[in-house]
Amino acid sequence: MFRTAEVGRKIDKQTFREAAAPLRIELVELQQALRGCPFPVIVVFAGVNGAGKSESVNLLSEWMDPRWLVTRAYGPPSDEERERPDFWRYWRDLPPAGRTGLFLSSWYSRPVLGGVYGELDEAALERMYARINAFEGQLADAGALIVKFWMHLSQPAQKKRLKQLERDPHESWRVTKEDWRNWKHYDRFIVIAEKTIMRTSQGHAPWVIVEGADSNYRSLTVLTTLRDRLARHIADRTENRAEARPSKPSKAVAAGAGAETPVALPKQPNVLTTLDLSATLARKPYEQALQAERARLNGLYRRAKAAGRSIVLVFEGWDAAGKGGTIRRLAPAIDARDFAVIPIAAPTDEERAHHYLWRFWRHLSRAGRVTVFDRSWYGRVLVERVETLCEESDWRRAYSEINDFERQLIEHGTIVAKFWLHISPDEQLQRFRQREQVAYKRWKLTEEDWRNRDRWADYEAAIDDMIAQTSTHIAPWTLLEANCKRHARIKAFRTISERLETALDGKRK
Amino acid sequence: MFRTAEVGRKIDKQTFREAAAPLRIELVELQQALRGCPFPVIVVFAGVNGAGKSESVNLLSEWMDPRWLVTRAYGPPSDEERERPDFWRYWRDLPPAGRTGLFLSSWYSRPVLGGVYGELDEAALERMYARINAFEGQLADAGALIVKFWMHLSQPAQKKRLKQLERDPHESWRVTKEDWRNWKHYDRFIVIAEKTIMRTSQGHAPWVIVEGADSNYRSLTVLTTLRDRLARHIADRTENRAEARPSKPSKAVAAGAGAETPVALPKQPNVLTTLDLSATLARKPYEQALQAERARLNGLYRRAKAAGRSIVLVFEGWDAAGKGGTIRRLAPAIDARDFAVIPIAAPTDEERAHHYLWRFWRHLSRAGRVTVFDRSWYGRVLVERVETLCEESDWRRAYSEINDFERQLIEHGTIVAKFWLHISPDEQLQRFRQREQVAYKRWKLTEEDWRNRDRWADYEAAIDDMIAQTSTHIAPWTLLEANCKRHARIKAFRTISERLETALDGKRK
Repeated sequence: MFRTAEVGRKIDKQTFREAAAPLRIELVELQQALRGCPFPVIVVFAGVNGAGKSESVNLLSEWMDPRWLVTRAYGPPSDEERERPDFWRYWRDLPPAGRTGLFLSSWYSRPVLGGVYGELDEAALERMYARINAFEGQLADAGALIVKFWMHLSQPAQKKRLKQLERDPHESWRVTKEDWRNWKHYDRFIVIAEKTIMRTSQGHAPWVIVEGADSNYRSLTVLTTLRDRLARHIADRTENRAEARPSKPSKAVAAGAGAETPVALPKQPNVLTTLDLSATLARKPYEQALQAERARLNGLYRRAKAAGRSIVLVFEGWDAAGKGGTIRRLAPAIDARDFAVIPIAAPTDEERAHHYLWRFWRHLSRAGRVTVFDRSWYGRVLVERVETLCEESDWRRAYSEINDFERQLIEHGTIVAKFWLHISPDEQLQRFRQREQVAYKRWKLTEEDWRNRDRWADYEAAIDDMIAQTSTHIAPWTLLEANCKRHARIKAFRTISERLETALDGKRK
Repeated sequence: MFRTAEVGRKIDKQTFREAAAPLRIELVELQQALRGCPFPVIVVFAGVNGAGKSESVNLLSEWMDPRWLVTRAYGPPSDEERERPDFWRYWRDLPPAGRTGLFLSSWYSRPVLGGVYGELDEAALERMYARINAFEGQLADAGALIVKFWMHLSQPAQKKRLKQLERDPHESWRVTKEDWRNWKHYDRFIVIAEKTIMRTSQGHAPWVIVEGADSNYRSLTVLTTLRDRLARHIADRTENRAEARPSKPSKAVAAGAGAETPVALPKQPNVLTTLDLSATLARKPYEQALQAERARLNGLYRRAKAAGRSIVLVFEGWDAAGKGGTIRRLAPAIDARDFAVIPIAAPTDEERAHHYLWRFWRHLSRAGRVTVFDRSWYGRVLVERVETLCEESDWRRAYSEINDFERQLIEHGTIVAKFWLHISPDEQLQRFRQREQVAYKRWKLTEEDWRNRDRWADYEAAIDDMIAQTSTHIAPWTLLEANCKRHARIKAFRTISERLETALDGKRK
C-alpha cells in the first residue's frame, strides 16, 4: 500500500513557486464559494510522524482565510473530555456548514497507536473502526465533504527527517521521545496503518496516501487534492440545490466542473517508472530455471491441495506484455483437473445485470484448485475508469470493495498472488509491429490495442492509484519487469512459490 | 424494540380479501416496471420461528410472477460452500437487475444463532456485523433495493404458534427440536436480535419489524411495505435515468410517487392505544409518594455522582401532557449545581449549520450531573418528520443515528431514561381550554398547539415507529399514562430510581 509513496516524487522550488500563486487563488475562491454551501469540510491528516502533517496544516492555515477555518489537534483526553463519551470532543469541534476544519491527531490516533503497542485487543479495534465509520458516515450522509490524507515516509526517510528536525534549533522541539519510540516500531506501525486505512476507506471518505519526503511535492499534492475534492463537491451539491448555489461561480469551481484547466502537478515518477526494465534472462538459464521452478511449484501446489487451500492468481498488464504466455507456462506445473484459466473480457449480458464483482465470485473454485484470472476485477479501476465505462464514484469506491473481496478470500485460506506485467511503450510498439507481420499472431492485435496505447499516460495514473490503494500486506502486487519475457515468467513462478511457502508454513511477512 | 410488535394487530378475513386483490395487481405491475430497471431487489426475512417468515415468502411467490423471482433459503453450509468464503453462496444467489430475490435463513442466521448459543465471541460478532454492513452497503451503492423484515412474536405467542403447527398434520413437519430449543432461549434470542437489528440497520437497508401473530395483518404489512419501498425506489431511480424508465408508468409506480391512493392497511392498534389511561393517583397518596421518591432519588443520584456517572433524562410527549410539570418536580431531588434542564425548541442559526445531533452532543454534561432534555433529538423523527422539515431519507436514517448516539452515552457509563407522556385527545382538548381560561397559563397555548392537534394520527404513526426503532434493551422508552398527572409523575420518579439502581448495582435486565 505504501510502496507507491516511496518512489521519490519531488518538485523544485521554482516550479512550486509558479504553481503556488494561482493555486492559492483557486483555494481562496473555493473557500468563498463554500461559505454559501449547506455543508462543512472536514480534512483529516494522519500518518507517519515527520511526514509533514503539521506543516500541511500550517500551510493551509496560512493560505486560506482563517475566519472560515478551524484547526484542531488532540492530545491525551483532558478530565473534561474523559467525563464524556470518546467522540464528544470531535463532535464539539466539528465546523459548521460553509467552513473547514483541519484535524490533526484525530480519531485515528487511538486505533493506530493502541494497535501498535498492543493496548487494544481485536474486538476493541473492530469496535473502533465501526465507530469511526459510523461517525464519518453520519457526517457524509448529512452532506459533509471528508478529505483524509495519510502522509507517508519510508523508515529510512523517517529517520533522516527526524534527525534533520533535531538539528534545526527552531524545529528540534517537534521531535519527542515518543517519535523515536514509534520509529522503532515502524514495521508494526505500517501493518496497523494499512489495516486502519483498509477498514476506514469508504466511498464517501477515501484515504489519499501522500509521499511525504519532499515538502514541495507533498504540499502541492495536498493542496491540489483538496482543491479538486472541494470543487467537485460544491459542483455536485449545488447542481440540485439552486438555493444554495454560490452567487458567483468562481474559476476554481468551474475548473472542478471541467470548464478550465486548473493548476496541475508537474509529471512525477510513479511506481512503474521505478522499475528497471533492463533485466534480462538468457535462453539457457531460463530453460533450466523453468524446469526447476515448475517442479517446485508442482510440489507446493500439491501441498496446498492436501491442506484444502485454493490458489488465486491474477494477471494484469499492458497489451502485449505477455500475460497469456506466462499463464500458458504455468499450466504444466499443475494437474489440468485442478487448473482453470478465466479470461476476462467485456461482461456478458447476465454479468452486466449483476454487481460487477458477481462474475468473479461465481468463478471461485472448490478447495485445492488453482484459478488464474487473465485480467480481473481490476478492470473496474483500469479500463472502466480510463474509458469512463463507469462513474468516477464507482471506480473510487471500488478500491475498498476490491480490498474487501480479497480479504474474504484470504481470511478463508485462499492464497492470492497479483501480477502487473510492465513493458515500456517502445517495447510494446515493437511487439505490435511484430504481431502485424506474423500471420498466426495477427488476430491478437486489434484497433482497441492502438487506442489503449494512445491513453498510456491515463493508464499509468490509474495503475499507480490501483497499486497505492490495493497493494496490501495480505495481498500485495508484484510488478514484473516484462521487457524480457523470460525474466518476467521466472519472477512470476518464484513469487507464486514464495507466497505458497509463506502461507503453508504459516509465516507471514 | 419489540414491544410495538406485541400490541395485537389483527385484520379480519373479509378486509384481507378486499385488500388482497388490488394489492396483488399493484405488486405485479411494479414487478413489470422493475424489469426495465437497472437494479435488483433483495428481500430478507428474519426473526422468530413461527412468526410467518416462510409463509410470507410463499405468499409472495404465489402472488408475483415466478419468472422474475427467486427464493433462497440456507441450511448449514454444504461441502461446496464450506470450501469457499462464507459469503460466496449469497453472492452466487443474488438476483440480476430487474428481478427480486427472497432470502430466508440468510446472512443473519449465523450471527443471531451463534450469539444466542455463545459460539461467537464479541470480536467474531463485531466482524460479522461489519461483514454484513459491507455486503449490503456495496449492493446498495450499486443501486440495489434492500428490504429487511424482522418477524416478531412474543414468547407466549411463539409457544402457541408452535403448538398450533404441531397439531396440524400438514404443518407439523415445520416444527423441529431446534425450534423448541430456540424457544427456551427466547430471552437471550431477543437480546441478540435487538443488537443485530441495531448494528445492521443502515439508511440504505433499514429493518422493518412486523408483528407476526395474525397472518392477515403480517401478510398485508409485508406486502404493502414491499410495494411502497419498490414504488419509491423505482420512482427515485428512474427520475434521473430516462433510459431506464419503464415504458408505461403503472398505477402502483404512480401511487408510490403520490399520485393515487394505493391499498392501505386498515387502522391498527399501536403501542399508545395499549396504554390504560384510566390510572389515577389521589392527592394524598401522591404527596406521600412524592416525598418518599424524592428522598430515594436524591440518595441514588448522589451515589451515581460519587461513581462519576452522569444521568440523562429525556422527556417527550403530547402538547399539554405535563412534561414541564414533571421536570419541575424532579428539581428538588437534585442539587441545583448538578441539575440542568435543556429545553429544545427550533434550532439556533449556529445549530442549524451543524449536523442535527451536534446540539445535543454539546449539552452533554461532565461526570456526575443530571441533564434533563425537555424535548430532544427525537424531534428529528417526530416534528421534523410530520411537518416535513427534513427529507424522508433523513428521518429514516435518524433511527440508527439516534441508537448509535445513545449507545455511546451508555457505553461511556451514562444512565439514560426516556419518557413519553401520553394523554388522550379529549384530555388534551380539556387542558387547552383550561389554558385559554387561566390568565397565567394562556401564554403556553399557541396556534402551533392547535395545528399539531390536527395531525394527531400522523404523530401517532411517528411515535409508534419511534418506539419500535429506538426502544432498546440498553435505552428503553417508558410510556407514562399521563391523563392523571400525579400518576405520571410518580411513575417517572420510580422509573428513574429503578434505572439508577440497576445501573449502580451492576445488574442488567
